[in-house]
Amino acid sequence: MPLSKLRDQIDAVDQQLIDLLAERLRLVGEVGEVKTEHGLPIYAPDREAAMLDKRRREAESKGVPANLIEDILRRTMRESYASENETGFKTINPKMKRIVIIGGNGLLGKRFVEMFELSGYQVDILGRANWDQAQQICSKAGLVIVGSPIDVTESVIKQLSYLPEDCILADITSVKAGPLQAMLDVHKGPVVGLHPMFGPDISSFAKQVVVYCDGRGQDKYMWLIEQMKIWGAHLYNVKAETHDESMTLIQALRHFTSFVYGVHLQEVNADLKQLLDLSSPIYRLELAMVGRLFAQEPSLYADIILSQKNNLTMIKRYHKHFSEAIELLENADRDAFINRFKSVTNWMGDYSSLFLNESRVLLQQAHDNRHYEDK
Amino acid sequence: MPLSKLRDQIDAVDQQLIDLLAERLRLVGEVGEVKTEHGLPIYAPDREAAMLDKRRREAESKGVPANLIEDILRRTMRESYASENETGFKTINPKMKRIVIIGGNGLLGKRFVEMFELSGYQVDILGRANWDQAQQICSKAGLVIVGSPIDVTESVIKQLSYLPEDCILADITSVKAGPLQAMLDVHKGPVVGLHPMFGPDISSFAKQVVVYCDGRGQDKYMWLIEQMKIWGAHLYNVKAETHDESMTLIQALRHFTSFVYGVHLQEVNADLKQLLDLSSPIYRLELAMVGRLFAQEPSLYADIILSQKNNLTMIKRYHKHFSEAIELLENADRDAFINRFKSVTNWMGDYSSLFLNESRVLLQQAHDNRHYEDK
Repeated sequence: MPLSKLRDQIDAVDQQLIDLLAERLRLVGEVGEVKTEHGLPIYAPDREAAMLDKRRREAESKGVPANLIEDILRRTMRESYASENETGFKTINPKMKRIVIIGGNGLLGKRFVEMFELSGYQVDILGRANWDQAQQICSKAGLVIVGSPIDVTESVIKQLSYLPEDCILADITSVKAGPLQAMLDVHKGPVVGLHPMFGPDISSFAKQVVVYCDGRGQDKYMWLIEQMKIWGAHLYNVKAETHDESMTLIQALRHFTSFVYGVHLQEVNADLKQLLDLSSPIYRLELAMVGRLFAQEPSLYADIILSQKNNLTMIKRYHKHFSEAIELLENADRDAFINRFKSVTNWMGDYSSLFLNESRVLLQQAHDNRHYEDK
Repeated sequence: MPLSKLRDQIDAVDQQLIDLLAERLRLVGEVGEVKTEHGLPIYAPDREAAMLDKRRREAESKGVPANLIEDILRRTMRESYASENETGFKTINPKMKRIVIIGGNGLLGKRFVEMFELSGYQVDILGRANWDQAQQICSKAGLVIVGSPIDVTESVIKQLSYLPEDCILADITSVKAGPLQAMLDVHKGPVVGLHPMFGPDISSFAKQVVVYCDGRGQDKYMWLIEQMKIWGAHLYNVKAETHDESMTLIQALRHFTSFVYGVHLQEVNADLKQLLDLSSPIYRLELAMVGRLFAQEPSLYADIILSQKNNLTMIKRYHKHFSEAIELLENADRDAFINRFKSVTNWMGDYSSLFLNESRVLLQQAHDNRHYEDK
C-alpha cells in the first residue's frame, strides 16, 4: 500500500519536528535567563513582530503558507512565555520591604504571590485565618494589595488605617472608583487601583492586560507598573470612572446575558447533545462561552453584577433595545430590520471587518480542534 | 550581547522548521493523490486520533508539551485538507447525469459547484440570467440542488414540476421542513434536504457538518451523502422538524441577540477602541462575534430570522426570561441569583466543564494571536 510508505515518511518528518521544538524551547529558555539577568520584559512586541514578518517571508519563498508559520510560532511562543515564568524575573525594586497580599490564598491572589516571589520579593499572605495579626504583618509592608472578593473589598480597605505612611496601597478588584476612593480615604501614602483583565488560569502574564487607575504618589508605585511589564503584561492607564463605565458592558452586561441564556436553555429544556451535533462552529463557540460561566463560582458573578448601580441601568437599556427589536419582527418589517442593521454597520465603521477577520481566524482554530468518532 | 547569539540559533532552528513543514505538506499532497485514486475520505477520524496520540507520547518523552505538538499538527492538517481540495476527489457515482445548481453563482452555491467539478461531475448553473432556459437545462439533470436565497427557496422549488422522474431534488437552505415538503409536493422522484452548517469562506469541507433530512428514495441519493463524506464532511441525519426546532436557537435567537447587542452598542454610543483596549480575551471574543455579523449581508439574517414563526416565539421566550432575571437584580436578591445559577449548572451536568475546557483552549489561541504596539 503506497499510503503506508508515505505515512512512514510523515512519521519521520514529525520526529524531526518534535526534536526541533525541543531545541527551540531549550534556546528560548536560555533567552529567558539572559532576560531575567538584564531585566528585559518577556514580551517584546517590536522584536516579535519583526521576527514573525521575517519568517512569513522565508516561509512563502519555500512554498509554505505564511499564516501557517505565524500560527505555529505564536503557539510555540506561548510555551516560551510560560517557561520564562520558571526562570524568575528581575527585581525592579530591590529595596522594597515586604509585600502583603490580602486574599493571597484566592486563585487570582495566588498568582500575584507567585509572580512577586519569582521576582525576588518577600511576600506575606493575609486571610481569614490570620486576620487577627493583620496590623502586625502590615507594619513591615512596603506594598499591600487587597485581593479580597469584590463584595468585601471596601470593608477590608476601611480597616487598613494603620499602614506605614510610605507603604503603597493597591487593590485588584474589578470595579475601581469605589475601592480607589476608599483607599485614598483610609491611607495617606501612595495609592493605585489595579484590574487584571484575566482569570487565574492563564499560563503567563505575557500580553495580558492590567488596567491601572492612579490614586496618589505615582512616582512611588511606578516600580510596580514596571515590574508587571517585566512579567510581560500590557499596562493600561485609565480613570477609575471611565473604567467602571466600560465594565458595565465588558463585565456586567456580558455576564448577565450569558446567565440569562443559560437560564433560557434550561427553561426550554434544550437538548445540548443535539445542539452540539447540529451546530456550526460559531454556535458551538457561543454555547461554550455561555456554558463556561456555569462551571464557575456563582457568587463571583453575582457580586460583579451587583457591584455598581450602573450595571442594572445598562442591563435595562439593553432589555429596552431588545423589546424594540422584537417589535420590528412582530410587524415582520424586513426593510426596517435591514435598515437598522445597516445603521449599526455604518456606526461600527472599519471595526466590523476587523471583527470579521479576527473571528474568522479564531473560528478556523476552533475548527482545527474539532474531532469526531468514526461511524 | 549573548541574546543575539541565541537569536541566531533560534533563527537557524526556524529555518529547519520551515523546511520540514514544506516537506510535510509535499508528502501530504502525495497522500491526497493516493486517496483520490482510491476514493478514501480526506478526513479519517480514527487514523488522525491515533497519529496525534502517538505524537503526544513521543513529544512528552522528549520534554515537549503534548498539547504543543497536537496544536501544531492540527493547524498543519488544516493546510493538508485544503491542499487535498486541489488534487480533486473520487467520483462516487460515475454514471451520474448532469448536476444543476440553482443559485450556483451565490457564495455558498459556488462552493458546491467547485466541489462537484473537482469530483468529476458535469455541473450547470441556473440563475436569474438563464432562468428562461431552466426547463431545458434541468431536462438533462440527474441531480438538481436549490441554493437560492432562503426567502425565495420555496417559490423556486414550486416551479420545478418538470424534472425527470429519476432526478434527485435537493436544497441547501437553512430551514428544512417547508422546503422539504415543497420538494416532495412538486417532484415524484428522490428528494433530500441538506443544510451545510458553515459559511462559504471555509478552506475545506473537512470536518464540516452537513445536516441531511430524508425525503424520499434514500437508496437513490446515498451516493451524494457518500460523495460529501469523501470531501471530508461530517454528515448528520435528522428529521426536518427537529432540525428546524434546533435552528430557532442555533440561528434565529443567536443572530437576533447579536443584532440587538450591536444596536445597543450604537445606542449607548460605546467607545469601541476603549472597549478593545480594556477588554479581557473573553469580551474581545464577544465583540468580534457580534461585530462580524455587521460585516455581512443584512438580508441573509433578516430572512433567517423571519423564516419561521417559531423563531419569534423562541425570541420572546428568551425576552421573558431576561425580564425575570432583571427582577432578581431589582430586588438585589444575591441568593436568588446564586440559586438560579446553581440550578442551571446542575441542569447542564458535565457539559459546563466540557464548555469551560473547550473555551479555555480557544481563549488561549485567541490570546496567542494578540499583539500590541511598542509604547
